[in-house]
Amino acid sequence: MTHLATGGDQGYLRIATEEAFITKEVLTAYKRLVAEGFDDPGFVSLWGFYSGSPSERATTVVDRLQDLGARRLGDMDAAGIDKAVIALTAPGAHVFAAAEAKSLAADANDQLAAACRRHPQRFIGMTAIAPQDPAWSAREIERGHGLGFKAVIHNGHVAGEYTDDEKYWPIFEAAEALGTPVYLHPQGPSKGLIGPLLERGLDGAVFGFGVDTGLHLLRLIVMGVFDRFPKLKLIVGHGGEALPYWAYRIDYMHAAGIRAGRHPSLKPLRMPVSGYFKRNIYVTFSGVAWEPAIQFCRSTLGADRILYAMDYPYQYQPDEVAAQDAIDMSAGDKKAFFQTNAERVFGLEEPVHGSGKS
Amino acid sequence: MTHLATGGDQGYLRIATEEAFITKEVLTAYKRLVAEGFDDPGFVSLWGFYSGSPSERATTVVDRLQDLGARRLGDMDAAGIDKAVIALTAPGAHVFAAAEAKSLAADANDQLAAACRRHPQRFIGMTAIAPQDPAWSAREIERGHGLGFKAVIHNGHVAGEYTDDEKYWPIFEAAEALGTPVYLHPQGPSKGLIGPLLERGLDGAVFGFGVDTGLHLLRLIVMGVFDRFPKLKLIVGHGGEALPYWAYRIDYMHAAGIRAGRHPSLKPLRMPVSGYFKRNIYVTFSGVAWEPAIQFCRSTLGADRILYAMDYPYQYQPDEVAAQDAIDMSAGDKKAFFQTNAERVFGLEEPVHGSGKS
Repeated sequence: MTHLATGGDQGYLRIATEEAFITKEVLTAYKRLVAEGFDDPGFVSLWGFYSGSPSERATTVVDRLQDLGARRLGDMDAAGIDKAVIALTAPGAHVFAAAEAKSLAADANDQLAAACRRHPQRFIGMTAIAPQDPAWSAREIERGHGLGFKAVIHNGHVAGEYTDDEKYWPIFEAAEALGTPVYLHPQGPSKGLIGPLLERGLDGAVFGFGVDTGLHLLRLIVMGVFDRFPKLKLIVGHGGEALPYWAYRIDYMHAAGIRAGRHPSLKPLRMPVSGYFKRNIYVTFSGVAWEPAIQFCRSTLGADRILYAMDYPYQYQPDEVAAQDAIDMSAGDKKAFFQTNAERVFGLEEPVHGSGKS
Repeated sequence: MTHLATGGDQGYLRIATEEAFITKEVLTAYKRLVAEGFDDPGFVSLWGFYSGSPSERATTVVDRLQDLGARRLGDMDAAGIDKAVIALTAPGAHVFAAAEAKSLAADANDQLAAACRRHPQRFIGMTAIAPQDPAWSAREIERGHGLGFKAVIHNGHVAGEYTDDEKYWPIFEAAEALGTPVYLHPQGPSKGLIGPLLERGLDGAVFGFGVDTGLHLLRLIVMGVFDRFPKLKLIVGHGGEALPYWAYRIDYMHAAGIRAGRHPSLKPLRMPVSGYFKRNIYVTFSGVAWEPAIQFCRSTLGADRILYAMDYPYQYQPDEVAAQDAIDMSAGDKKAFFQTNAERVFGLEEPVHGSGKS
C-alpha cells in the first residue's frame, strides 16, 4: 500500500468511515421539499436548518458537503485522514417518491463513483439506495458493487416506516450476498417519535438521531433480520447509538418479555440481542471522539468491532483526531481501530472494480 | 448503626435505592383505567400486561408490589438487602385526574409511612406526588418530609407533558428547599413518542422506558431547571438512562446548536449538559447489574455519584447482588456504591421524623 503523506507516522493509516457528501441535485430537491412544507417534521427541521440558516455551521457544512475534490482532500490532509469512506448524506433519497428517489440515488452513485475514480487512494464510496423500491435497491447495490463501492448507506426510516418490515429485506439479502456491509445512518426521527424531541430542539444529532437509529437497529434485531441473514454485516455510528450501553437491560427485559408473552412482536431469537452486536454489527465513533465510550465498546464488544470515523463535514474537528491517537490501547488495537478493522469490514484489500487507477 | 444479619459481612450495608410498591387502591384504579381503554397507550401496554397477564412474571410482580411486610422482608433477607428505599410504582398517580391523583398519592404516602414506622431499620420511603397540581405536590413533599420520607418519586410525563414546563417547577423548588432528592423514574413513553416503540413491543423496560426518561431528564437540563435550582438533587436509574454514555455527543451538538441558533428552545446554560451530571445528578443501576456500565459511570461521573439499586420486584435477582459484590473496585468505592452514597444523597443519617422507633 502506498505511503500517504497524511498518515502512517503513527504506524497506521487513518480511515474515516462515516463521511458525507451531497449532490447539487439532491440539495436542490431537499430545498424544494422544505419550501413545499413537506410533511416530515424531522426532515424539515434538519434541512430547513442546513439549507436555510445563515449560521457559520450550516453554510460551512453545506459548502463542504458539495465538494468531492480539492477542498475535501485539503481538509483530510489537514486532519491527517488517509482515506474517507463517503456516503450520500442523510436522509439520502429516503424522503422522495420512488421514481425521483431512484433517479437521485443512481445519479449520486454515478457522481461519487467518478470522484472515487479520480482519487482511488483517498476516497471509498458507499452505494445510495431508494428503499421505497426494495427490488431496485437490491439491483443498485449490485451495480454499486461493480462501481467499486464497499458498503451500502441506509439512511433510516422511510417516510416513518422502519426497515424491519419484511418488504425491505431484499436490501439486506443483496448486501449479505455480496458480503458488503450496510451502514445504518441517522436522520430526523420519524413522525411517530419526534413530537417531544422536536418541541425542545432535541430532534437532531444532539439526541433524536440516536433515539431513532438505536430504535431502528433494535427493531431489525428483534424482528429477526440477523437470524434470516446471519452473515449480514451492519455498521452503526455514534458509539452504536447507545445500544451497546443498554445491552444488559435489553437482554434481560427482552428475555423476560418473551417468557411472559409480553407482546406479539417479541419472538425468540437465536441468541441474546447483544449477541448480534458481537456477530453482525460494527460500531464507529463518528461524533463520539471520546475515550470512555470507545474503551467501553472495546471491552464489551471487542477490539475487532470498533472503527474510527470523523463524521465530516458535520464534525470536522482535527483536534479529535489527536485525541483518539492518544487513547490508551495497544498499538495493535489502535491500528485495528483506525485502519485494519475498516480494511476487513469494508473489504478494502479487494481490488476496486472499475477504478482503473488504483 | 445496628448491625443487620442480612448485611455487613462485606464491610458495607446494601441499600437498594429504587424499590417499588403499590397500594390496593392504586392497583384497582389502574385496572379501571385499563378496562376503560384509557387514552394512554404506554400506560395500557404496561398495566394491561401487569394487571391482566397470567404469566408468572406479571402475577409475581403484582403480588410482591402489594407487600410491605413479611414477604418483602424475606426477599430482602434472601438477597442480602439491608435497607430498601421504596416508592409508589410507575406511573404513580401521574395518570389520574387531579382530584383522584391527590387522593391516591396522599393515601399511598400514608400507607408507606406506616410501613416505614413498622420497619424503620429496613424501609425508607419516597413521597408520591400528583404533578397535575404542582402547588399541592409541593405541600405534599413537605408533608412527606415530616413523615420521614427521604426523597420524592417522580414518575415521568404527565399525560404526555414533560415537567420541564415551568408550571411544574414548584415541585423542584420544594425538593431543593428541603434538600430532598427527586427520583425521576420511567413509565410508558408518552403518546408523542410511543408509536414506533409500541409497534414492535419495545415500549417497556426493554427500551422505551429509557428513551422516555432520558429525554425527560435532558429536557429538564436544557430548559434550565438546574440553573434555576442549582442545589436540586435528581436521581435517575438504569445507568442514567444512557445519558452518561451520550455525554460527549450531547455536549458537542448542544453547543453547536446554540452557536448556530438551531432552535428557539436551545438557550445557553451555565455549564455543559454533562456538567449537571457531576453537580446535580446521581445515577443508580436498577436493572443494570453490569460491571461495564457501572465502571463507565464511576470513571466518567465519579465514585461518589453512583448508587446500588435492585428494582424490586421487577428485577428480583439475588444473583445480581453477588455479581455487584464482585465488581473490581476499591473497598471504599464499593462501600460508597452500596451504602454511603445513599446515606449521603438521601440524608439517611438525619433523624427520621415521626417514626418514633428508629
